[in-house]
Amino acid sequence: MMPFDTAETCASARQAFGGGAYHRQTPATLPDLLATLPEIAGHLGGDPSDWLIAEISDGNMNLVFAASGPNGSVVVKQALPYIRVIGESWPFPLERVRFEHETLQIYARLVPGRTPRVLHYDPELAIIVMEHLTPHLVLRQGLVEGRVFPLLADHIGSFLARTLFFTSDLFLSTRGKRQLMARFEGNEELCATTEEVIFRGPYAAVSLNRWTTPHLDAAVAAMRADHELKLAATELKLVLRTSTEALIHGDLHTGSLMVSEADTRIIDSEWARYGPMGFDLGAVFGNLLLAYFSQPGHATSYNDRTSYQEWLLATMQEIWETFETELRYLVMEHGGELFPSALFEQPSMAASLINSRLRAILSDTIGFAGAKMIRRIIGISHVEDMETIRDPSVRAQCEAKALAVARSMMIQRHAYRDIHALAAGARSASTGNAI
Amino acid sequence: MMPFDTAETCASARQAFGGGAYHRQTPATLPDLLATLPEIAGHLGGDPSDWLIAEISDGNMNLVFAASGPNGSVVVKQALPYIRVIGESWPFPLERVRFEHETLQIYARLVPGRTPRVLHYDPELAIIVMEHLTPHLVLRQGLVEGRVFPLLADHIGSFLARTLFFTSDLFLSTRGKRQLMARFEGNEELCATTEEVIFRGPYAAVSLNRWTTPHLDAAVAAMRADHELKLAATELKLVLRTSTEALIHGDLHTGSLMVSEADTRIIDSEWARYGPMGFDLGAVFGNLLLAYFSQPGHATSYNDRTSYQEWLLATMQEIWETFETELRYLVMEHGGELFPSALFEQPSMAASLINSRLRAILSDTIGFAGAKMIRRIIGISHVEDMETIRDPSVRAQCEAKALAVARSMMIQRHAYRDIHALAAGARSASTGNAI
Repeated sequence: MMPFDTAETCASARQAFGGGAYHRQTPATLPDLLATLPEIAGHLGGDPSDWLIAEISDGNMNLVFAASGPNGSVVVKQALPYIRVIGESWPFPLERVRFEHETLQIYARLVPGRTPRVLHYDPELAIIVMEHLTPHLVLRQGLVEGRVFPLLADHIGSFLARTLFFTSDLFLSTRGKRQLMARFEGNEELCATTEEVIFRGPYAAVSLNRWTTPHLDAAVAAMRADHELKLAATELKLVLRTSTEALIHGDLHTGSLMVSEADTRIIDSEWARYGPMGFDLGAVFGNLLLAYFSQPGHATSYNDRTSYQEWLLATMQEIWETFETELRYLVMEHGGELFPSALFEQPSMAASLINSRLRAILSDTIGFAGAKMIRRIIGISHVEDMETIRDPSVRAQCEAKALAVARSMMIQRHAYRDIHALAAGARSASTGNAI
Repeated sequence: MMPFDTAETCASARQAFGGGAYHRQTPATLPDLLATLPEIAGHLGGDPSDWLIAEISDGNMNLVFAASGPNGSVVVKQALPYIRVIGESWPFPLERVRFEHETLQIYARLVPGRTPRVLHYDPELAIIVMEHLTPHLVLRQGLVEGRVFPLLADHIGSFLARTLFFTSDLFLSTRGKRQLMARFEGNEELCATTEEVIFRGPYAAVSLNRWTTPHLDAAVAAMRADHELKLAATELKLVLRTSTEALIHGDLHTGSLMVSEADTRIIDSEWARYGPMGFDLGAVFGNLLLAYFSQPGHATSYNDRTSYQEWLLATMQEIWETFETELRYLVMEHGGELFPSALFEQPSMAASLINSRLRAILSDTIGFAGAKMIRRIIGISHVEDMETIRDPSVRAQCEAKALAVARSMMIQRHAYRDIHALAAGARSASTGNAI
C-alpha cells in the first residue's frame, strides 16, 4: 500500500511551494521574524531591538545568519531559490530545506548530539533556526590552520557506521526502508547536480570550471583526453545512481563538519539521498587528502606541517577502522532483519557477508574520494585548503600531486588492499615534484 | 522539485482505496459491468444475455475471466484483496493492479505488440479488461507438452533488452528515472513478498513449504543446514533490495508468457519494481531450466524429449545472446545520457563499460535463476513442469538434479564464464542419478 509518509510528503511538497509566502531574509527583517517565535525570543533574551544579526553565509548554497541577544544566540539558515555563489542564473529548489530537516531529525535519533539542535523549521520560508555552535569552527578552516582534533576520527567513524547501518537493508525491513526512501523523493534536482559537478563537469569544457593556470593547463587537457579516467568517472556515477544501500548525507566534505577540541557536529545535510555508503566515506577521505596535499602550501619556517600531514593520514585510517569495527558490531547486534537466527545459527555467517560488503564499500569509497578531489581542483567549486595558498606555483605543485593520486584512486579503486594502502599511496606521492 | 507524477501517484493511490466501491466479480455480475463499457460491449457484440463468461483463473494471485460474445471476446482480470490460492489469511494490496497497468502502458511504448492490449482499467474495482489472446497458450504449458516456439528467444531477448535499457540509467536522465521510479512507489508489500518467498522461506521451517516426500527430505534438510547456500541467498536478496538498475517485470517466469507459433506476449506485470536487470533474466532462465530438468518426467516411448531438452538450452543461450547484442546496440545508439559525445569521442569507451556491466548482469542472472529454481521445488509455490510428473520417484529424480545445479548457480554465480558454461553445467547434471 502507499505508505502514509508519502501522502505527507506530497502535502508538505505542495506546502513548500504553494504558499508564495517566501521572501528573502535580511539582518533588517530577521528580528521581526524571530520575535514571533517565543522559544527563540526567550533564548535570545531582551528586546528584538537589542538583537545583533550578522550574515555569516559560508557555503555555496544558502543564506546563514547569526542572531545574538543578551541571553544567547541562534543560527538562521535560509535556502535561496538559486545557488548563492552563482546567482539567479542557476535556480535551485527551496524544497532542499525539507530534506535537510528530515535528515536532521533522523540523525538526532541515530547519533544524538552529532548535529545542531533544531529550534524552528519553516518550510514556506525555507528556514531552519538552529543551535549556535560555539566554540566550534568549520573543520576545513581548522585543517588549514593545522589544528588537531583528537576525537574527530572516533566521532565521524561512529556517525558513518550508525547512520549508514540503521538506514540500510542490513537493519531495515523492506517496508521500513521503502517508506524512509519515500521521504527523500523529489530530490532529483540535487541528485542531478551532484552527478553533473562531480562526474561530468570536471572532464568537459564547462565555462565555470577553473584551475591554477597556466601551471595545470597540461594536466587538465590530459584529464579531458583520458578515456580510462572518464570511464571510471562514468562507472562511479552509475554506482551512485543505481545503489540504494543507505541514506547518505550526500555532501560530507570538511566544510560540512563543525568541530571543537571536544565535539564534532554534522551540518548541511540538504543533499541527503539514498545511495552507496562509500559516497559519504569518500567525501570525508577525499577532503582529508586534499588537506593533506595542501599542507606544504601552509608550511612556515617554524612548522613544516609534515607531522600534521601524518595526523591527517592517521585520522583517515582511524575513521575507516572505527566505521568497520562499529559496522561489524551493529550487524551482529541488530542485523536480525537480514540474518534471522532461524536461518543463521552462527554469527560467522553474518561476518562473511559483511566482509564482502566492506570490501565493496572500500572500493567505492576510494573511487568516490578520488572523484571528489579532482572536481575540487579542476571543476566549478574549489576548496580553501588549496585556494588559500598564495603562491600559484606552490599551489599548483600541491594540486598536481593530489590530481595524480586521485586519478589512480578512481581507476585502481578495486586494487587497494586496505585503507593503509591508500595512506601509503598518498605518502609516496607527496614527495618529489609532480610538475 | 517534487515531480508532478508523485502528486498524481498519491491521488490515484487514495482513489484506489478510498472508493470502497470494490466488490468481487463473478460470471453473474460481469455482464452488467461490461455492458456499461461501450467499446467492450461493441467488441463482444450482441446482447449481454448472449455473452458467455468463464472463470479461467490460473496464476496464484487474481481472478481471471474470459467473456465472449457473437463478435469477439475479452479477458477480465480482477485483483483480490488476498492471495487467491492461499485465501483471506494472506491479505494482499489491490493496488498491485495499478503497477500492472503502469507497466503495461510502459511496455506498450517500448515493445509494441509484446503485451495484451488494455481495453479498460478500473482502479476502484482493481480490474483490467484486455485483449483475449488467441490462439496463445501459457508458455509453461507448451513446455510441458514439448512444443517448440521458434520466435520465443528473439522476442524475449529483445523485450528484455529494450524494457531494461530504456528504464535504466544507461538511457534515462536522473530526473526522468526518479520520476518513473516514483510511479512504482507503494509496492513494498509486493517487494517484501518476493524477497520472503524466494530468499528466506525455502530455507526456513515455513508451514506452507512442500516438496516431494520422502524422496527429497534429506536434500531439504541439507539445504536448510547449508550456510554457504543461505549466505548466497542473502547476498542475492541484498542485490535485489539495493539495486535500482532498471524497471523489472519482477515475476517473469514461463507462466507470465503467452505464446503461439508466431507470437509472444508478456503478462502479469503487477510485481513490477525497480531492481537488478538480472532478476528478470534469471526468472526466464531459472524456469527454462526447471522445464529442462522436468523433461525426463514427460518422456514417452516415442519421444524421450532429449532433443527437446537441447532446444530449451539453445533457447536460453539465444535469449542471452539477443539481449546482449541488442543492449550493446541500444547503448551505442541511445546511450548519450551516460556517454555524452562531449566526453567520449570513441564508442569503444561505451563498449568497455557495457562489457563490465554485462559481466555483472550475467552473475546476477545465474544467481537469481538458481534461487528461483530452488524455491519452486522446496518452497510454497511449485510449477506444473514438475507437478504434472505423476510418479513421485521420477519427479524427485528430476527435482534433485535441478536442486544440485541451482545450488552451484547461486554459490558459484561469479564463476560461470558465459551463458554456454551454464548450459554445459545443466547438461552434465542431467545425466546419471541425483538421489
